Amino acid sequence: MRNETLDLPRRMLMGPGPSEVHPRVLAALSRPTLGHLDPAFVRLMDDIVHRLRTTFQTNNQLTFPVSAPGSAGMECCFVNLLEPGDSVIVCINGVFGMRMKENVERCGATPIVVEDAWGTAVDPAKLRAALKANPAVKTVAFVHAETSTGVQSDAAALCAVAREFGALTIVDTVTSLGGIDVNVGAWEADAVYSGSQKCLSCPPGLSPVTFSERAAARVKERRTKVQSWFLDLSLVMGYWGDGKGGGRTYHHTAPVNALYGLHEALLMLHEEGLEQAWRRHSLTHRALVAGVEAMGLKMKVDAAVRLPQLNLVEIPEGADDATIRRRLLNEFNLEIGSGLGIWAGKVWRIGLLGQSATPAYVLACLTALEAVLHASGARITAGRAYAAAHAVLNS
Amino acid sequence: MRNETLDLPRRMLMGPGPSEVHPRVLAALSRPTLGHLDPAFVRLMDDIVHRLRTTFQTNNQLTFPVSAPGSAGMECCFVNLLEPGDSVIVCINGVFGMRMKENVERCGATPIVVEDAWGTAVDPAKLRAALKANPAVKTVAFVHAETSTGVQSDAAALCAVAREFGALTIVDTVTSLGGIDVNVGAWEADAVYSGSQKCLSCPPGLSPVTFSERAAARVKERRTKVQSWFLDLSLVMGYWGDGKGGGRTYHHTAPVNALYGLHEALLMLHEEGLEQAWRRHSLTHRALVAGVEAMGLKMKVDAAVRLPQLNLVEIPEGADDATIRRRLLNEFNLEIGSGLGIWAGKVWRIGLLGQSATPAYVLACLTALEAVLHASGARITAGRAYAAAHAVLNS
Repeated sequence: MRNETLDLPRRMLMGPGPSEVHPRVLAALSRPTLGHLDPAFVRLMDDIVHRLRTTFQTNNQLTFPVSAPGSAGMECCFVNLLEPGDSVIVCINGVFGMRMKENVERCGATPIVVEDAWGTAVDPAKLRAALKANPAVKTVAFVHAETSTGVQSDAAALCAVAREFGALTIVDTVTSLGGIDVNVGAWEADAVYSGSQKCLSCPPGLSPVTFSERAAARVKERRTKVQSWFLDLSLVMGYWGDGKGGGRTYHHTAPVNALYGLHEALLMLHEEGLEQAWRRHSLTHRALVAGVEAMGLKMKVDAAVRLPQLNLVEIPEGADDATIRRRLLNEFNLEIGSGLGIWAGKVWRIGLLGQSATPAYVLACLTALEAVLHASGARITAGRAYAAAHAVLNS
Repeated sequence: MRNETLDLPRRMLMGPGPSEVHPRVLAALSRPTLGHLDPAFVRLMDDIVHRLRTTFQTNNQLTFPVSAPGSAGMECCFVNLLEPGDSVIVCINGVFGMRMKENVERCGATPIVVEDAWGTAVDPAKLRAALKANPAVKTVAFVHAETSTGVQSDAAALCAVAREFGALTIVDTVTSLGGIDVNVGAWEADAVYSGSQKCLSCPPGLSPVTFSERAAARVKERRTKVQSWFLDLSLVMGYWGDGKGGGRTYHHTAPVNALYGLHEALLMLHEEGLEQAWRRHSLTHRALVAGVEAMGLKMKVDAAVRLPQLNLVEIPEGADDATIRRRLLNEFNLEIGSGLGIWAGKVWRIGLLGQSATPAYVLACLTALEAVLHASGARITAGRAYAAAHAVLNS
């Protein structure tokens, strides 16, 4: 043990999350702690709930941040909506779909997998076929923005197919919320979770969730208790309230300072405007792609399905994955992400999430990557990335 | 929604938690966010693990903070150690024992309750009788420091009885860790959880846990998967490491900034020294009791079982619970806790947790309480509390 206060480096966070946290949000984290039932804190909770509804584009009453990271938000959706013996269609096109399947199994339910290849979107036609073949299915789960592949699926279309068959939907928007259009109201999605550390640009540790009235009704009609006391919606909502200023019941002690940070981050997002934030993500994404391609590197997935906020770049011949990432980290204080699962060692994941989606970060990333790759003897075209990205940013 | 940054009051936190957070810890929270796999962050994780072992007084390899509040730490212990069909003895002498029973049921196990009256400690003789009568029991759960009643039980004795019968123990030290002696090594306790927001004086949101080798072996021998993916020890430990500098596997994204705070709080606790911190809690407790009794108020539980860090004071005749607490909050920025469960409306819970256990807080609390009670027409003796507490503090 070192008997000293932390001496931490200052990184540029351009991996798959956490993303850059703005000094305003960092400052909010360090406000004096209030009691979790203090009237001043309860007002803040109400404001967070309103702002999350705005961000998810929904009027869902049951909207709040789970007091734990995105994986717990995922689990919150599954343990509340499923009961043992249920059949659930899980659409898998990457790591986080696989994690959904794990959740289904651990609820004692039976997953029916609709699989699409890594790097492709979930296919609504396959989902329809699976629903036709399995009339007992009451729940469909899919990932809107696959963090392992950088692919977005058509959430509106998938929710519409599920609705045709009377199935409720569980939708992972961990990486999408705040970066691209997440319209829970228009999609009529039923249980949706996200994370604080992606396009909302908070530190990790909170998972915003929202549940439709259909989802709330299903929770009320459960024959069995929710297997998690901590994540039981019927109990958690006694604390987060009915949205009408009703009384608060102690459930667990909320992570007060983390919620200060979430509030400030949502405030900043709304000051900018949701649509302006999406445009910023799109612009910086196009600039990054222009620079990457000007170097002769290849984007891993088709332009039609790319997430602007998470860019998968193929590792070029002659470049060693770990060495390049280590040099970027040690020499430039720049973090980019490694590949996950079957794509480990084959791609880098460059995040333009939330506050990391800025022209300065794009240019710094491109020039650092170019320099390190060039010096390592990788086969790239040097000297063109900056101008290519610059042209897009000024277009 | 108010379009503005937070304007929050500055409270003196003397409820049952969260406790006062030191400015050093608040400042640590606002350090720039690092990636959860950044080598600089991994070094910090190692340091936290070492410091938690020191704090729990154990060499247990499986020691780390769960990325969620104490309730999730509780659930982590139960879902990993229990399997459906298990019989579990749950000792109940307050609200948190009842929550343990809920956890047992939600794991599909059968709770056998050993009940003691509110305000009394768990009786080792009753536990022994229950273990004799139920030879199939493999697990015993009890609360070391009951936050609802301010009572401490004899953890060493209870663990010894459980061991006689070959049962593993799950021990709640949420309110005790850092305030009184918690000696996991000497107790030979098996699964122990705590919370960040009590005597460790961090913001709420983290739950330190530690598991013995016997507990780890039981997790390895499970016939069924742990029902929570998020809390599955076999997965979480791939991230927190083997304590020997081995590789880290991504599981969930750790709450990076909250962990900065925990690190700084543990550093402060170790600078002071565990035993000195216990002495400080004891001294401020005796001063508070002297002042409370000099006012003619009554402590709710016997001196022999009182927790120094959580003081239950009977609400005197003529005093309205909510009015008094509201005046303390609004006029003095002082938060004290209300009663829970069957003691709601009958007691106040005055916390001297961690950084709140100071002479200044004791004196401020006593004088404010005396003034408000006196002005409200409650039957108390005014003018003596300050001198009585002062005498103890200077003894």
